[in-house]
Amino acid sequence: MNRQDFSRPLSLRSVQVTDDFWKKEMELVRTQMLPYQWDALNDRVEGAAPSYCMRNFKTAGKKNLERKEMGDAYQEPSYTFRGFEALPEDPEHLEDKFYGFVFQDSDFYKWAEAVGYSLTQHPDPELEKTADAAIDIVCAAQQEDGYLDTYYILNGRDKIFTNLKDHHELYCLGHLIEGAVAYYQATGKDKLLRAAMGYADYAAAHFGPEEGKCKGYPGHEIAEMALVRLYEVTGNEKYLNLGRFFVDERGARPYYFDKEHPECVKNSPDGLRYAYNQAHIPVREQDEAVGHAVRAVYLYAGMTDMARITQDESLYHACEKLWDSMVECKMYITGGIGGTHIGEEFSFNYDLPNDTAYAETCAAIGLVFLARRMLEIKPVSQYADVMERALYNCVLSGMALDGRSFFYVNPLEVNPEACRMDERKAHVKPVRQKWFGCACCPPNMARMLSSISSYAYTETEDTLFVHLYMGSIIKKQVNGKELTITVSSKLPKSGQVEIEVSGESVPFTIALRIPDWCGEGDTGFSIKGVRDSECTRKDGYLYVTRCWQPKERLSLKFAMDVKIMEADPRVREDIGKVAVTRGPMVYCLEEADNGTDLHLLTLDCGKEAETEEFTVAGEQVIAVVMDGFRQQVQTSRKGLYHPLKTAAKEPVKLRFIPYYVWANRGENEMTVWVRQEK
Amino acid sequence: MNRQDFSRPLSLRSVQVTDDFWKKEMELVRTQMLPYQWDALNDRVEGAAPSYCMRNFKTAGKKNLERKEMGDAYQEPSYTFRGFEALPEDPEHLEDKFYGFVFQDSDFYKWAEAVGYSLTQHPDPELEKTADAAIDIVCAAQQEDGYLDTYYILNGRDKIFTNLKDHHELYCLGHLIEGAVAYYQATGKDKLLRAAMGYADYAAAHFGPEEGKCKGYPGHEIAEMALVRLYEVTGNEKYLNLGRFFVDERGARPYYFDKEHPECVKNSPDGLRYAYNQAHIPVREQDEAVGHAVRAVYLYAGMTDMARITQDESLYHACEKLWDSMVECKMYITGGIGGTHIGEEFSFNYDLPNDTAYAETCAAIGLVFLARRMLEIKPVSQYADVMERALYNCVLSGMALDGRSFFYVNPLEVNPEACRMDERKAHVKPVRQKWFGCACCPPNMARMLSSISSYAYTETEDTLFVHLYMGSIIKKQVNGKELTITVSSKLPKSGQVEIEVSGESVPFTIALRIPDWCGEGDTGFSIKGVRDSECTRKDGYLYVTRCWQPKERLSLKFAMDVKIMEADPRVREDIGKVAVTRGPMVYCLEEADNGTDLHLLTLDCGKEAETEEFTVAGEQVIAVVMDGFRQQVQTSRKGLYHPLKTAAKEPVKLRFIPYYVWANRGENEMTVWVRQEK
Repeated sequence: MNRQDFSRPLSLRSVQVTDDFWKKEMELVRTQMLPYQWDALNDRVEGAAPSYCMRNFKTAGKKNLERKEMGDAYQEPSYTFRGFEALPEDPEHLEDKFYGFVFQDSDFYKWAEAVGYSLTQHPDPELEKTADAAIDIVCAAQQEDGYLDTYYILNGRDKIFTNLKDHHELYCLGHLIEGAVAYYQATGKDKLLRAAMGYADYAAAHFGPEEGKCKGYPGHEIAEMALVRLYEVTGNEKYLNLGRFFVDERGARPYYFDKEHPECVKNSPDGLRYAYNQAHIPVREQDEAVGHAVRAVYLYAGMTDMARITQDESLYHACEKLWDSMVECKMYITGGIGGTHIGEEFSFNYDLPNDTAYAETCAAIGLVFLARRMLEIKPVSQYADVMERALYNCVLSGMALDGRSFFYVNPLEVNPEACRMDERKAHVKPVRQKWFGCACCPPNMARMLSSISSYAYTETEDTLFVHLYMGSIIKKQVNGKELTITVSSKLPKSGQVEIEVSGESVPFTIALRIPDWCGEGDTGFSIKGVRDSECTRKDGYLYVTRCWQPKERLSLKFAMDVKIMEADPRVREDIGKVAVTRGPMVYCLEEADNGTDLHLLTLDCGKEAETEEFTVAGEQVIAVVMDGFRQQVQTSRKGLYHPLKTAAKEPVKLRFIPYYVWANRGENEMTVWVRQEK
Repeated sequence: MNRQDFSRPLSLRSVQVTDDFWKKEMELVRTQMLPYQWDALNDRVEGAAPSYCMRNFKTAGKKNLERKEMGDAYQEPSYTFRGFEALPEDPEHLEDKFYGFVFQDSDFYKWAEAVGYSLTQHPDPELEKTADAAIDIVCAAQQEDGYLDTYYILNGRDKIFTNLKDHHELYCLGHLIEGAVAYYQATGKDKLLRAAMGYADYAAAHFGPEEGKCKGYPGHEIAEMALVRLYEVTGNEKYLNLGRFFVDERGARPYYFDKEHPECVKNSPDGLRYAYNQAHIPVREQDEAVGHAVRAVYLYAGMTDMARITQDESLYHACEKLWDSMVECKMYITGGIGGTHIGEEFSFNYDLPNDTAYAETCAAIGLVFLARRMLEIKPVSQYADVMERALYNCVLSGMALDGRSFFYVNPLEVNPEACRMDERKAHVKPVRQKWFGCACCPPNMARMLSSISSYAYTETEDTLFVHLYMGSIIKKQVNGKELTITVSSKLPKSGQVEIEVSGESVPFTIALRIPDWCGEGDTGFSIKGVRDSECTRKDGYLYVTRCWQPKERLSLKFAMDVKIMEADPRVREDIGKVAVTRGPMVYCLEEADNGTDLHLLTLDCGKEAETEEFTVAGEQVIAVVMDGFRQQVQTSRKGLYHPLKTAAKEPVKLRFIPYYVWANRGENEMTVWVRQEK
């Protein structure tokens, strides 16, 4: 690996997203989610469980002030350590203590991050003022030594960093950094960034390879990638070293977590213990994606960042193996990961149940984090293919079309009766829910969608990589000169893309990803406006190098045929079944269009597919209509089991809609995989 | 309903089972299970969790003796109430207190019941001596007032009958009665029977409709049918009335259990609460089988007994509806019931997952209890069809061929990797286990198999009903004269049955069940040795009425073709799949015969089936061999999802074995349902 070849995302301030499809999602975040989330952080959403997030910061700030004002006379109140604090039913009777989940602080940091991103695309002085004031509240809670986690500030500082495995102090540090950097990069304001540095300094003084320092690492990863980011913004190697320590120490024997949790030692053998936290073996020895799926991809993303920054081949090689493990054996066709709700974990290889899937929105987002980082090191189109698959399907499925309700779990098959009646499927919701008490997914969507362009484009000195075709106006410096690259895209409705370059004439390369879905060979893809001699093809990218003349325009066309897909037959749950895709979109059958008992339907795969404009809850989409059959239920027969007879079935038209728009028309059945008619 | 028409099982002492197939199972019980179980009850099985059953009786007896010897000077020790007592790890340090599960006493009663049955078929003075001595120990624990449950005797009598819902005092009473009656009927010895009457008297003084009496009923049913049995043996209506009170009071509002468990009130609404215990609504209003499957069928069996004894039409009608609910919507093809391990409960209609099935052995046994009781009231062959299905498949599957290991859970599809890796399937074991700490199923099998003839035959004054074709020598009184009916049967290997009647010539009817599996119409069934005028057919039985001449013989032949079966298409888990049956036996594919990844196999349903003699772990069975295909795994393709191609598949021979012999050749995959080839 060669540092000079690595590409990096462009600053969000250099890319204005103009895309019909994605701009709409971003506007939902700006107009719906951010105000709603702010209300939620302040316990003002009626009918939702209070967050207590801002309240905890205020309480901690108040205590801080008392302490500072009283100086040496201050006596630390004798707080009792209470573990996870139940939310009181009557908000009138709150005391000056910590409420909510142990990771509650991070909710604000995610909001601040999304606000930062959003301000780059849509300046909003009012929103910025709100954020500034909130940052003042948060910073007032910071301790003089830099420590900043309201759970321990309010519950007793003597327990700081004593339960790294299950409590989320270092997770909160990671999100604080992510939020602070984003807000700084958007606004130039460094108050939150300085707070993040203060807490990172505190952590760096506590953890590290040096003698006498604590050898712990985060139970829920994110600090690894955040610390790389903090290093890149500040140039301070202390942060890089802390992140590297967390990566390198993870899984070392004897396990650090054993000291915190002696009760774990007898329950699980060495080599398997803490697999939930990806801390069962050192990260360079890991070659199978295991444990809590969100934690896993957050770690892998941090490892990839670290491999890039330190040019660490062995670390990069582990990232490649873990990537392969996921996409070859553990990923749903929607880009969802996490086959079991038990521990929200990866299941074993090829175990991808559709109706009990976890496929958490946050995990798909983490997969996008990882994919972009893999692309930075090596632009190979498979990373972008997976990134696009996750974004258009599992990630977007996480939010209703109106931006007001959310899925944590993104199943590929839903029977609402089963969700109600069967506790094994209780985690699968047939309709999206309002804000959650544990609000990880919606704020994560907000920060992803607000920064979507950083996944579409990366750059080197002389090359712009187009990973996703997303309408945008991009400013890029080449040899000290500024070019404007205007991308317009009809995706996902059709595969037409136009790219126009303007500015001074300098030699420069645009690397265009050729998506896997446009088909093998050259029939699936055409380009106009360049000479063959200007083009080279490598790892799924077409590199177009030339001196661009003003107003020159590239026209790309990607075939967007309906494709009938099958899964690797080792995926037991999908055997004998097919799924419909078109371009990056995975399709599904919904009861609203196809009647009840979707399992009775079969798809006639030999017939042609038709596409048509269709409206789902106000959203214009391309529907796919195909021939199929519906097996008849013979209610006249007594008993459940009978000698086989030729099934009575009637021909029907099956109407498939894009997966991301499902569950916007009330509670109903849905399935991605449909049985294949003989 | 008319009492005169009701048939009853023959005394076990009137039927000697000679059947090749079933006699072998009975001998396994006698030679393997009963000695093993006795060792288990006395904590002498190495490697198994101690039962503490006999120990608890001895401890209680010792305390009893102290109390009696000290008379008025005796001071009740102040026991603390400890709930479910954890088993101590070091058996050396046992104190004089109760150990084990709250229902531990019942383990002895089940053993005593099986011993009683076994002695009728195979007198064994040694075994009888052991049992007599054990009964002495048990009876010594009985309190002067008749109460007999070591859990409360040792934990504090002040808590007697205060947790009817979860503790098992009345369940233990029921099993005590069953064991005592069986032992009395086999040996004529009434010591245990008198103890049972004493405890029943105590309960009858405590519970009842009379003012001032407790309005509770059992949380785990069985006392209902046991009390009918005690009434039938003693003629004492007190026991019948107590059983009837338990049946009638169940589900009455306000719920009795609410008083015991106020915490339940807010968690579950009226009308659903206590559905787990079938106490959500009065039993006559129940029309869907719900809750814990074993409790449910035990209740329904008791209701049927009560309906028969009291000629209660409304109660019988409820039994008919609950029966239909099970067999029309909630029963596996193996006769297993209980679709979910969560609460070991019935799932919702048509929810019959194969790989996460519960299908507990005890529940199938309870279904057999119920079926026989339904047949007593009304001999309709569907009850016997289901009884036979459950016996030959789900019940027998509960025990290994060597009688030394056992299944609680009888899945219809097993992938051992999933059982190990996936907590959702942790209840499914790919190999049978040794004796369990909670030893309900193996002793239940012992008592069922030892008394198997009582399910094969029932009688009225002048009719012998043959529900199951089982080689036997039957003594029957007709008009004061004794006939000997000798049945010989080749089932389940072939459908040939001979019946010979000898003794004095009296007019008498044999009612012969025509099994559902021999096919519709008359081609599936032939009979020789009777004139048409002597035969009438009703509700699936052929009634042959004649004056039998010495040595006259009936020859029956039931077609035993291989049948390819399908499930009602509303059973989602079986859609597109078929199962193979032959006679009463359900077949399955096992990895040992068909290789790994059974889901890759399809069955060519158009081809002829062949049958052949085959040996599975020493057991001679009829295997079914059919044509099918195995889909090839293309390991060269990268990624999990690809455009559909015609599947590469190779023709293979599929070898099916009877379900009951699976898992006798080590850990491997198994499936009952196989995909249907186009």
